[in-house]
Amino acid sequence: MSDEHLGQTVAAAIDTQALWDLLMRVAEIGGLPNGGVNRQALTAADTEAKNFVIDWAAAHALSSFQDEAGNLYVRLDGSDTQAPPVFLGSHLDSQPTGGKFDGAYGVVAGLEVLRALKALGLTPRRSIEVVAWTNEEGSRFLPGATGSSAFAGSRSLDDMVRAETTDGTKVADDLRASIDATRAPRRSMWTVRPAAYLEAHIEQGPILESEGIPIGIVEGIQGVCRIAIEIVGETAHAGTMPHRMRKDALAAATRVMSALQPLTNAGDDILRLTFGRLQVWPNSPNTVPGKVDLIVDLRHPMQSEIDAVAARINEVVAQEAPPCRGAARIVSTVSPVHFDSAIRTRLKRACDVVGHASRSIISGAGHDALHLARICTTGMLFVPCRNGVSHHESESATPEQLVAGARVLAAAAWDLAQT
Amino acid sequence: MSDEHLGQTVAAAIDTQALWDLLMRVAEIGGLPNGGVNRQALTAADTEAKNFVIDWAAAHALSSFQDEAGNLYVRLDGSDTQAPPVFLGSHLDSQPTGGKFDGAYGVVAGLEVLRALKALGLTPRRSIEVVAWTNEEGSRFLPGATGSSAFAGSRSLDDMVRAETTDGTKVADDLRASIDATRAPRRSMWTVRPAAYLEAHIEQGPILESEGIPIGIVEGIQGVCRIAIEIVGETAHAGTMPHRMRKDALAAATRVMSALQPLTNAGDDILRLTFGRLQVWPNSPNTVPGKVDLIVDLRHPMQSEIDAVAARINEVVAQEAPPCRGAARIVSTVSPVHFDSAIRTRLKRACDVVGHASRSIISGAGHDALHLARICTTGMLFVPCRNGVSHHESESATPEQLVAGARVLAAAAWDLAQT
Repeated sequence: MSDEHLGQTVAAAIDTQALWDLLMRVAEIGGLPNGGVNRQALTAADTEAKNFVIDWAAAHALSSFQDEAGNLYVRLDGSDTQAPPVFLGSHLDSQPTGGKFDGAYGVVAGLEVLRALKALGLTPRRSIEVVAWTNEEGSRFLPGATGSSAFAGSRSLDDMVRAETTDGTKVADDLRASIDATRAPRRSMWTVRPAAYLEAHIEQGPILESEGIPIGIVEGIQGVCRIAIEIVGETAHAGTMPHRMRKDALAAATRVMSALQPLTNAGDDILRLTFGRLQVWPNSPNTVPGKVDLIVDLRHPMQSEIDAVAARINEVVAQEAPPCRGAARIVSTVSPVHFDSAIRTRLKRACDVVGHASRSIISGAGHDALHLARICTTGMLFVPCRNGVSHHESESATPEQLVAGARVLAAAAWDLAQT
Repeated sequence: MSDEHLGQTVAAAIDTQALWDLLMRVAEIGGLPNGGVNRQALTAADTEAKNFVIDWAAAHALSSFQDEAGNLYVRLDGSDTQAPPVFLGSHLDSQPTGGKFDGAYGVVAGLEVLRALKALGLTPRRSIEVVAWTNEEGSRFLPGATGSSAFAGSRSLDDMVRAETTDGTKVADDLRASIDATRAPRRSMWTVRPAAYLEAHIEQGPILESEGIPIGIVEGIQGVCRIAIEIVGETAHAGTMPHRMRKDALAAATRVMSALQPLTNAGDDILRLTFGRLQVWPNSPNTVPGKVDLIVDLRHPMQSEIDAVAARINEVVAQEAPPCRGAARIVSTVSPVHFDSAIRTRLKRACDVVGHASRSIISGAGHDALHLARICTTGMLFVPCRNGVSHHESESATPEQLVAGARVLAAAAWDLAQT
């Protein structure tokens, strides 16, 4: 049988009910009364979820390992155990009021691929490992993507775990406690380098759902640039100060935001330019505002575009702030990532093999794949989620939407494991 | 000697140093280290200031009285003690971090008029009383202008003193304690109705200073209308939600503020339209704002203009809020007051007699005169203050600026007292 035909067979063996049941079982761990999940990184619930996966693996005659960052691996041995494995994965940790699908879907879809292979009695050439990376969300402690960035060497684990959690505990202590509490043997992160990494995830945006397309093949992850704009005017009495003599910081901020608004009207709608935080001083109804702080969240797949818009923001602040003083400064920046075109072609072929329509899509949010892309061939696929809502307890996707992604993941994983 | 000539004589007897020294002495009561004043209504400092004035009156052979609202009166008997008196006044209470001049100037200028008349041995036909009204500021308890509005019958004193102060005490208890602690005999507010009321005050705005004009003859007090605008959109991820699908409440608020901005550019610069308070939810840098609350402070001397702009605000919210939902509602309104033209003519004549340039001016802030205007011929005059700053410890005016106003007050008071 051809590998393509076998890929189709593996995809067909993905079971809608098994996938859904496993996902719902994981969602009970840290589950909230209204259907959401609170399974923040390195909490008891997070460790419980890892132990659940370790037990599931043992029940399916699969081995589990855990590394220095608490990353959990479930391994299906290939015929060539010396060949670098294919990794499938995402994360099990959630936002404090998160949904059932963000992260958990990618891990569970990977486990269902392993279960299907086992059920079919098929052994790929390369081993396939499903990874649950530690603290992708960064809600309980920063920086997020702790496990994947340590694994990829893009950040030092020792540096990252020096922080405190929002519970007031030391990250290093929580990490040690969590690793000790799981039943998986240790395996240093430096002993295994993957041949490739695939991550399945809900889109966390509305594009696939609104276009009725089941699979998004992720081209890359947008770069993010945060710019703080400070506008300083002069407080004055709202009744007595004539407009011509005012230095109204909110009026100046309004001019700045208005002048930048046309940038968001481009037909391609790729640039994301959000004024999410605005604070006014003294914020009193009868006082002309003396100061406004604004944060701009600027995202685009091309660094050159981010740079151009950041420069334009500087210009607009200089033009529109007077008679107030205005200043814009970059406070953080993450460069865009572009996934390898060969892996996107493979994912497209997997969609064709499985028979699902797909489109190319840009990830607006960060993911563990951003870090893996630095060290191996990396790809991501998205499935729709209801109304594009994520990081919220109402996050939702249907079993059919989820299984479509898991089948494409299965076909692509088989394909990569045979190379 | 003609009354006009006598008015000139009284004005000339106003002593720059005496006026300044008395004002600085009052400013020591509740004085703050950096030159400001904290003499909030019905505090120990406020009562101390009243006792200081009572002692000053006694030292100048003038009688003092106090009414049910704690309003303090210092009286110079006229030749016709049965004729309704002329009132001169303002208030002694301050903002918690207020200045030396707001309110206190009008009281001290009145006392200096009485001192000058005494020193000249002149007796006007009508008695002249200097009044310090209780709680003009409304900073320690609301509503402000407690004393003057009770005196004018525009609000019930019993209703007003039911509230608690910011110190957690009952206003009624504080009022009783303050009255008992002063050394002035009681005189019911209903036993005296004035023939006229004049109030001298710092402008609390920048117009006189910027135009180099020493006296503002107040045409009236602007009406104030507070409008709350609520804009409800939908929160979304700043990275994943395309702009064409957003319901960004801050973007909608920006359109509303921009569309209203041209109203503030009128050549006459009379309308005051201030967005002083703006609050964003959830106010997180990576979340498209789901809700914005705005408060508009709208002021104009003509109620018809206030009504027209309020209607325009409704229109603009309806036009610019979509795709968000927007609603504007009036939360409070105070009608404009127009001072009697005859008294403005008298004040202009007093300026001519004293030899000071003047201009007609609108008061942007509320004053006790607003209430007195309901029951008697009422007028106000303004003197410049530095940079138009008020309600701030840096509030400032020069002895020369202050004496100019006191001289015009003296000439006008003499004029009115002879009628």
